[in-house]
Amino acid sequence: MPLSAVDIIARKRDGLELTAEEIRFFVRGAADGSIPDYQIAAWLMAVVLRGMSAREAYDLTDAMLSSGERISPDLLSGSTVDKHSTGGVGDKTTLVVAPIAAAAGLTVAKMSGRGLGHTGGTLDKLEAIPGLRTTLTVRELLAQAARVGLAIAGQTAELVPADRALYALRDATATVQNPALIAASIMSKKLAGGARAIVLDVKVGRGAFVKDVESARELAKLMVDIGVRVGRRMSAVLTRMDEPLGQAVGNACEVEEAAATLRGEGPPDFSRLCRVVAGEMLELGGAAPAGQGEARAQEVIATGAAFAKLREMVEAQGGQPRSLDQPLCGLRPAVEHVVVAPQQGIVISVNAELIGRAAMQAGAGRRRKEDTVDPAAGVRLVAKAGDQIAPGEPLAQVLASSPEQAGAAADLVKAAYRIGDRPPERAALVLERIRGNPPQGRSDQPR
Amino acid sequence: MPLSAVDIIARKRDGLELTAEEIRFFVRGAADGSIPDYQIAAWLMAVVLRGMSAREAYDLTDAMLSSGERISPDLLSGSTVDKHSTGGVGDKTTLVVAPIAAAAGLTVAKMSGRGLGHTGGTLDKLEAIPGLRTTLTVRELLAQAARVGLAIAGQTAELVPADRALYALRDATATVQNPALIAASIMSKKLAGGARAIVLDVKVGRGAFVKDVESARELAKLMVDIGVRVGRRMSAVLTRMDEPLGQAVGNACEVEEAAATLRGEGPPDFSRLCRVVAGEMLELGGAAPAGQGEARAQEVIATGAAFAKLREMVEAQGGQPRSLDQPLCGLRPAVEHVVVAPQQGIVISVNAELIGRAAMQAGAGRRRKEDTVDPAAGVRLVAKAGDQIAPGEPLAQVLASSPEQAGAAADLVKAAYRIGDRPPERAALVLERIRGNPPQGRSDQPR
Repeated sequence: MPLSAVDIIARKRDGLELTAEEIRFFVRGAADGSIPDYQIAAWLMAVVLRGMSAREAYDLTDAMLSSGERISPDLLSGSTVDKHSTGGVGDKTTLVVAPIAAAAGLTVAKMSGRGLGHTGGTLDKLEAIPGLRTTLTVRELLAQAARVGLAIAGQTAELVPADRALYALRDATATVQNPALIAASIMSKKLAGGARAIVLDVKVGRGAFVKDVESARELAKLMVDIGVRVGRRMSAVLTRMDEPLGQAVGNACEVEEAAATLRGEGPPDFSRLCRVVAGEMLELGGAAPAGQGEARAQEVIATGAAFAKLREMVEAQGGQPRSLDQPLCGLRPAVEHVVVAPQQGIVISVNAELIGRAAMQAGAGRRRKEDTVDPAAGVRLVAKAGDQIAPGEPLAQVLASSPEQAGAAADLVKAAYRIGDRPPERAALVLERIRGNPPQGRSDQPR
Repeated sequence: MPLSAVDIIARKRDGLELTAEEIRFFVRGAADGSIPDYQIAAWLMAVVLRGMSAREAYDLTDAMLSSGERISPDLLSGSTVDKHSTGGVGDKTTLVVAPIAAAAGLTVAKMSGRGLGHTGGTLDKLEAIPGLRTTLTVRELLAQAARVGLAIAGQTAELVPADRALYALRDATATVQNPALIAASIMSKKLAGGARAIVLDVKVGRGAFVKDVESARELAKLMVDIGVRVGRRMSAVLTRMDEPLGQAVGNACEVEEAAATLRGEGPPDFSRLCRVVAGEMLELGGAAPAGQGEARAQEVIATGAAFAKLREMVEAQGGQPRSLDQPLCGLRPAVEHVVVAPQQGIVISVNAELIGRAAMQAGAGRRRKEDTVDPAAGVRLVAKAGDQIAPGEPLAQVLASSPEQAGAAADLVKAAYRIGDRPPERAALVLERIRGNPPQGRSDQPR
């Protein structure tokens, strides 16, 4: 019997497990437009409310992966590693951990995205470096990765077109929040990238997409399971994200902070996260023995090799490496506005989403896909959770494109600070690690 | 804060109760096209999987009712009554009970629909009467109801346009089966018809849309509750439907059987159902004291007044009343095909859906909305559940437009009969009655 979209929707509505064939039929129909949006939307809502098994999530990932172009792991030389973070505010981790991995001898050929709403994107950050080009072809990406060990490019239109089709609908139909849909969206793009080892940084907490540890663990396990089934070495690290990472939020500001971190001068919270994620990449990629990843990451920072690798990559992509030695944040005709503490006390928390929205308001982010960003705009947090403050002391500095934007952003920054009289409890940065290795001899290739 | 479709979808996804304002916003957006189909589809699936409270179902009905034109109860003279059946195969009840109600002194101004798939529609049946016109304007409908006491017309395009918009999507997105959506679809059209008393015939069983008593009771209670809130007198009768009603399935065949029933010569099961539904209409409309409805219905059949009322209506709408005295079924170049019993035994069951599909196959029904129907085509059941049969004896007679259609229909008829060696258990026809009267002085008008 031929497959029918309405029958597949009805089966998922009734809580049944879909076959690989049914999932492929739906994903192909979404990618080529043969299934109308309203049927996809009803199916997505049924998936969100009825859930998907790990097997279905794998088949969904596989079907999405098949919808577009992908890099075969065999095209990449050396030991390849990739990473993904489930996003956040002030998350410039890629700019630090990718150079560390490459400096330690691994190959990193990474495809990244742009920011939307209150979250930033690695591409926008890189483009704050004058002259740097991110529109590499797949051939250029591979060639640079082979030569330098490190290349970061924008996602091409052919990378998982099914994800584009589904994501636009998910956003408009309140069907974003589902582990299988999230896992398939992330993993289809990671698998298309071709790295043999993949580290996932799954954020948990008030400032993250996932608020509780149980949901984060479920999502992490699902993604590790999917990667292992395709023969990739996988590791997921669950890390706390209650406030923005580091002090800088905004494109040039974050590049500046990433460069400082690679010189060993970064903020403690962000430097610690980078050592954890990079350490995991080194161990998974075989550049450090088990338990030695963080120490080895610290070593390539201390020798200057990691920072040199970032400069080498910037130069290879047409950027000026010397811009990494200068202040980048708040340059150009930027308007500065300092937000001061209204009272005596201790910072209890800094709301990451509000800071992200403040940075967007200042000009650093996009409200809609078509918007352009001001690389110099952003927010610099002077005080973070646990810091003592006195009235009139600076909490944060807003760097905006215009006085109006500076004012609007400053209001959001003020609202983001909670001030009290007792220090907040400190939570551990790393909550859990979930690793998965494919059985020996398992094919690296998805079906 | 302005309402947003995606927020309303998210609230229903999370199982929250929507406000009247949110429901109105969604229904208005569906009717005027300002909310895209994919958002409506996601919302419908969330409603199906999360459910709606009785209050939400009422607000949904009210919002749908507001989307189009409606007849005020004050425009109808006399004591008005309407009925609705949740559909079925061979369900010609309206053609019998509406004349009974009118003959007993009530006013029936009814708007009916056409059949689709394996279920028939009253309009198609009426149009099997040569010359009869169903395209009455609202003014003509009201005038004829005032003069004759009985008029049946097609639904106008302005009758609950929101229902049209939602129904088309529900069919394509597997979101038909939900009590609130079904109740709002039925009740918005009934309330728009303006009758002060409404009897609902809710079918339960293998041959019905609703398979179990609990679901039928829930649906019936919801509809009674909605009607009472708007100030209508309501009654719902839960009746068994395990096989087709009566012996005739097909437009002209059913008119012939309805006429026979009004002359007191109908099949026992169908005649009994008509007395029950008509009795309920008479009691609810005040034309018979409590407990006397069925007897009074039997009386207007016995005196010939009910049959005379049907003839009067047919004449008023341009049809030839004498066609009600002649065989109508299988006339014209119809192909007859008799399906015979393959073995000795007792008929255990006759699958209503398969008989409905056979009648459609024969030419009596529509596969798609645009199809035309052959009024002479249909199926006549000779044997029904409980009947003894011998090999070679006729089970049913297929009357089709062409030999090919006759053959295809006959195959379905054969498949519909289950034959065994023990008589099936007889279930009671009427399972439950649920009545609802609005408090005294309650307005008849929806907000």
